[in-house]
Amino acid sequence: MKTRAAVAFEAKHPLEIVEVDLEGPRAGEVLVEIKATGICHTDAYTLDGLDSEGIFPSILGHEGAGVVVEVGPGVTSVAVGDHVIPLYTPECRQCKSCLSRKTNLCTAIRTTQGKGLMPDGTSRFSYKGQAIAHYMGCSTFSNYTVLPEIAVAKIRKDAPFESACYVGCGVTTGVGAVVNTAKVEPGANCVVFGLGGIGLNVIQGLKMVGADMIVGVDINDTKEEWGRRFGMTHFVNPKNVSDVVAHLVELTGGGADYTFDCTGNTTVMRQALEACHRGWGESIVIGVAEAGKEISTRPFQLVTGRVWRGSAFGGARGRTDTPRIVDWYMDGKIEIDPMITHTLPLERINEAFDLMHAGESIRSVVVF
Amino acid sequence: MKTRAAVAFEAKHPLEIVEVDLEGPRAGEVLVEIKATGICHTDAYTLDGLDSEGIFPSILGHEGAGVVVEVGPGVTSVAVGDHVIPLYTPECRQCKSCLSRKTNLCTAIRTTQGKGLMPDGTSRFSYKGQAIAHYMGCSTFSNYTVLPEIAVAKIRKDAPFESACYVGCGVTTGVGAVVNTAKVEPGANCVVFGLGGIGLNVIQGLKMVGADMIVGVDINDTKEEWGRRFGMTHFVNPKNVSDVVAHLVELTGGGADYTFDCTGNTTVMRQALEACHRGWGESIVIGVAEAGKEISTRPFQLVTGRVWRGSAFGGARGRTDTPRIVDWYMDGKIEIDPMITHTLPLERINEAFDLMHAGESIRSVVVF
Repeated sequence: MKTRAAVAFEAKHPLEIVEVDLEGPRAGEVLVEIKATGICHTDAYTLDGLDSEGIFPSILGHEGAGVVVEVGPGVTSVAVGDHVIPLYTPECRQCKSCLSRKTNLCTAIRTTQGKGLMPDGTSRFSYKGQAIAHYMGCSTFSNYTVLPEIAVAKIRKDAPFESACYVGCGVTTGVGAVVNTAKVEPGANCVVFGLGGIGLNVIQGLKMVGADMIVGVDINDTKEEWGRRFGMTHFVNPKNVSDVVAHLVELTGGGADYTFDCTGNTTVMRQALEACHRGWGESIVIGVAEAGKEISTRPFQLVTGRVWRGSAFGGARGRTDTPRIVDWYMDGKIEIDPMITHTLPLERINEAFDLMHAGESIRSVVVF
Repeated sequence: MKTRAAVAFEAKHPLEIVEVDLEGPRAGEVLVEIKATGICHTDAYTLDGLDSEGIFPSILGHEGAGVVVEVGPGVTSVAVGDHVIPLYTPECRQCKSCLSRKTNLCTAIRTTQGKGLMPDGTSRFSYKGQAIAHYMGCSTFSNYTVLPEIAVAKIRKDAPFESACYVGCGVTTGVGAVVNTAKVEPGANCVVFGLGGIGLNVIQGLKMVGADMIVGVDINDTKEEWGRRFGMTHFVNPKNVSDVVAHLVELTGGGADYTFDCTGNTTVMRQALEACHRGWGESIVIGVAEAGKEISTRPFQLVTGRVWRGSAFGGARGRTDTPRIVDWYMDGKIEIDPMITHTLPLERINEAFDLMHAGESIRSVVVF
């Protein structure tokens, strides 16, 4: 079949909207009509050529929502008509990782996914006879895409696609880091570094679980209003204090119970660790750092009880936990709509990248 | 009263055995007759002048066992005749840390202890009219010493002092890191870096809790026999492999569930983290690094599920957990006697430091 898609033919060039060829689903695969997709910094990271493992030409996009329109042989967990969110972190429920009960990082299809291929080692996309790579196992910048059955989460049908798509990455990454990775308890004092599309979701996750103090840290004062809208109780602009770590330790009465880095800046990651309370404070690295950058601290920080951990896709098991987050949204426990600042048709997808680079959007969503 | 003690009059000089003056216990304090004391690297660290906060003159020693011979007003938890282990990490059961249920690092008397003083801000030791500082709140290199009630752990009377004293630091630090900090589960694959007096106790802790693979790593081949004696299943000398991290990941089938640094070397600490299994491996820093040294890694290591934490006094609450470890020794669940390679009278205490520096002892114990 043919499908419209925004193709990344090469790094550092705008996406091109063309009709590509798409093969139908093979065994264990499903064909999904993407109804909406968010544009995330990770897409830009790859498109800008910063990801040394980036593959071109490819169809980017990993934050979508849509409808199953065809299933391949042997597919049992979803059916035609089901509403689904594509998962860049699948959940096979059979690999060592899934069975460990300790991580969401399923390894069932990691190797082929990293190569831009389906699990059988081939691509379903082509253009003028040349194969086009899948991206993060999702390729949601295509109106239709093929995914392994283990890489789609079935969600309720009354959830709007334009907001549900954000659960495919940003919402789950932020809320999940609170719920699954840090397991924040009611009454905790927390600090969130970076109030963008992830940080705001950390904040609303903290509000949902009953944190006491939710301190937002950002070098941009305009983010204060955004933070407060989702539950932030205190705002700190590091430019206005002489020593941000000392200031935060003082503000939180000895240090935070949990801190979250949503900046990707390794200097900030260190501050986030050192702003933790002696004895038990845990710092969660969410942001993705530039290639080659390292984090560091004195080991004394750990020996005296601080813990350094990270979170990928909010520690969420894709098929199990993602639908619950959609439920939380539909039940009003978390918000999504106010964060979607721009909605655009596929033809204007490059504008969404411009808005993100300019810092003018929290989230842009493309609807097909 | 008068008591014999080994006094550190100044850094980088041998201890001197003299008779010092000791005031009796004040309110909330107890007088303890020390029967035996271990010599630990931390004592040498201070004596060698490497601790920028070291105080002289002082009476070192923090790994002892003895008998309560007098109690001050208001003391209720121990009585004359009780056998006790002095605690450099006290347990007041009332401060924010003790009540957090998340840490053993009681802060009740931290400030005065760090200054070499009793909680009321004075010292009980003096020599020729000049005050002598307490050390780590213990000063077990004195035949008699005064301690706050909250800084002694009451133990069973049938435990020999010469072995029980080792529970005051080394045994608890190693076994406790497994049991309290890492909470290692049966079947786990673990790696221990550094097979000295702490590392061997980590190994026997891992054996006790039913770990599957217990890999010991040391640059000294003679440590292999020591490690195997306490439960080590595999030995790796980093000098014999080209890439120790890759070798350990391969050996453990993808990385260790838990690793322990008992070296204090920040390069090794990084290897210990990176030898952890993707998704859930946890690395515990136990060793104390040189002043100014920092640990570092790529944040990707954390984002993909590894956890970096530290352990002080094995995460053990002094009064609650230390007596249990003595019980485990008396019940044969852990060993202590084979690790005590040298027993010396107080007069030969400087020889114990020489043996440690020469790497000839696992533990030397001074008996009074």
